[in-house]
Amino acid sequence: MTLLTTLDDILRLDLPQPDAAAIEAARARQAQLTKPPGSLGRLEELAEFMAGWQGTDRPRIDRAQALVFAGNHGICAQGVNPFPQEVTALMVANFNAGGAAINQLCRVAGADLQVIALDLDQPTEDFTKTAAMSEADCLDALNRGAAAVDPDADIVILGEMGIGNSTVSAALAHAVYGGAPGDWVGRGTGSDADGMARKAEVVAQGLALHEGRSPLQMLAALGGREQAAICGAVLAARVARIPVMLDGYICTAATAPLHGANPALLDHCLIGHLSIEPGHGALCEAMGKRPILSLGMGLGEGTGAALALGILRGALACHDGMATFAEAGIGPG
Amino acid sequence: MTLLTTLDDILRLDLPQPDAAAIEAARARQAQLTKPPGSLGRLEELAEFMAGWQGTDRPRIDRAQALVFAGNHGICAQGVNPFPQEVTALMVANFNAGGAAINQLCRVAGADLQVIALDLDQPTEDFTKTAAMSEADCLDALNRGAAAVDPDADIVILGEMGIGNSTVSAALAHAVYGGAPGDWVGRGTGSDADGMARKAEVVAQGLALHEGRSPLQMLAALGGREQAAICGAVLAARVARIPVMLDGYICTAATAPLHGANPALLDHCLIGHLSIEPGHGALCEAMGKRPILSLGMGLGEGTGAALALGILRGALACHDGMATFAEAGIGPG
Repeated sequence: MTLLTTLDDILRLDLPQPDAAAIEAARARQAQLTKPPGSLGRLEELAEFMAGWQGTDRPRIDRAQALVFAGNHGICAQGVNPFPQEVTALMVANFNAGGAAINQLCRVAGADLQVIALDLDQPTEDFTKTAAMSEADCLDALNRGAAAVDPDADIVILGEMGIGNSTVSAALAHAVYGGAPGDWVGRGTGSDADGMARKAEVVAQGLALHEGRSPLQMLAALGGREQAAICGAVLAARVARIPVMLDGYICTAATAPLHGANPALLDHCLIGHLSIEPGHGALCEAMGKRPILSLGMGLGEGTGAALALGILRGALACHDGMATFAEAGIGPG
Repeated sequence: MTLLTTLDDILRLDLPQPDAAAIEAARARQAQLTKPPGSLGRLEELAEFMAGWQGTDRPRIDRAQALVFAGNHGICAQGVNPFPQEVTALMVANFNAGGAAINQLCRVAGADLQVIALDLDQPTEDFTKTAAMSEADCLDALNRGAAAVDPDADIVILGEMGIGNSTVSAALAHAVYGGAPGDWVGRGTGSDADGMARKAEVVAQGLALHEGRSPLQMLAALGGREQAAICGAVLAARVARIPVMLDGYICTAATAPLHGANPALLDHCLIGHLSIEPGHGALCEAMGKRPILSLGMGLGEGTGAALALGILRGALACHDGMATFAEAGIGPG
């Protein structure tokens, strides 16, 4: 993808469509495999989805890239999180040392993990006072996210880390989809009921200050660098027709401004896991997407996406490796 | 496990308990890992479950054994299935040739697959006319299932194949848990609404004929060889304290007689996937178990269990490989 020089460049991206002939061929193959029609459920849908984006009736995952973006947030000044911002950098160090959940899950799922810390020593501004990022800062993070995508990846797994970013996520979701601030606020990393009320109040203040902006302008006004980088990676993958597996609430909310600007920007995105954050279900519904897993997790880092990669591998292994009725000498009914 | 010589031997098995100290130690470890408490949700529960049955705070899966049992059913004479019984043997041949879904999913999940065809040329009797199996036949299949369990397995994945066995499953679930026959009947492999009505009628006839039997006697009266073999494998694993991953509706229903006889016989069992068969949710609830996955599948063969093994591997990888807060130099909040 060429560098974005304005936020509105996003609206002018050339968006290639999934390959309809490949989807049709994959569907025809599914109908011939040795199983009752439809009995692999979501696995069949996933195989056809991958066929469309990879442009082949036999999609495969040789190279799975996992990108975890980390950022810090000025909104923490409002006391929305029980953990200090230093934890973001400590967790990045933990990622780099191989000690976090995402390291283990990427190893199990066969994904190459890359962690990108975005100016952790320069938190964004407090969005209740001013825009979290200037348009230039936002574009910088978008372009860094886009540049991180390996053009040879067969799928990109996205995740994030950033103390305070569940509040940022609630603000973005509220800005794009409306409702009440409380609809989008959850416990995040250890907030109690008072903490959640505080988060909802902060979200309401942010929305009041930045009212009337477009969804993409809201990304700059409310988002953090890791949210913008996630959007950049999603866009680069979209343009290159590489499928993307989003993680949970934070990662999905990061892409809400793209969905608000043009839903087709997320056509290539799957959602790995339904978070325990209460707003995630409504967010997925607003986006018309069904998470693959629901395991009561709420950690972020890309953990739900990495686990779902295992399901996707299973889907493609069935699609590619199963015998047809003809090959197995079985009449199809 | 020593050979069962009567069905009531099942009630006299010595049932070792999970190791409470190992569970406690695993739980203490989870609290120290670099994540907010509980944020890995079901993965944390799975790690503690495995710790208890393996008797160590660091459970692992070096050897995953997948057992698929196949059988044929006299009830097919009642026209409950659109496919001929020959398909059971053809699918077993497909398993042995590596062409079925379960072959691909075992490869992805790292499970050793063993397929055990149980006298496919001798279907059980039609349970609307007489007992499907004599007690001797039932015990033979139970013992064959038990003998198949590798005592060195770290987990056993169970699956099945048998044309007609969704009707057998509905009968077993109805016999153990009551309700109406229609509560337990679904499409199985391709039945339409008329076929489902026929299945419910056949189940009602079977229950009327065999009324008043104990749950274990119902296994012989209504079940097939693959159902009894599944029970045998479950029992052998229970006695050896090896955790088990059941698959979907058919596999879960096969174990209903054990649950009806003594719920503790299934303490070591997980359920891999919530089937699209409408009775599976109620069956899981009656057993007090929550399936790990829900992907709209209804194929059987052990496919849902094999996919869930990937989740279990992720759970143990996190449990074993993550750094503690102390190791990462992060204060725990």
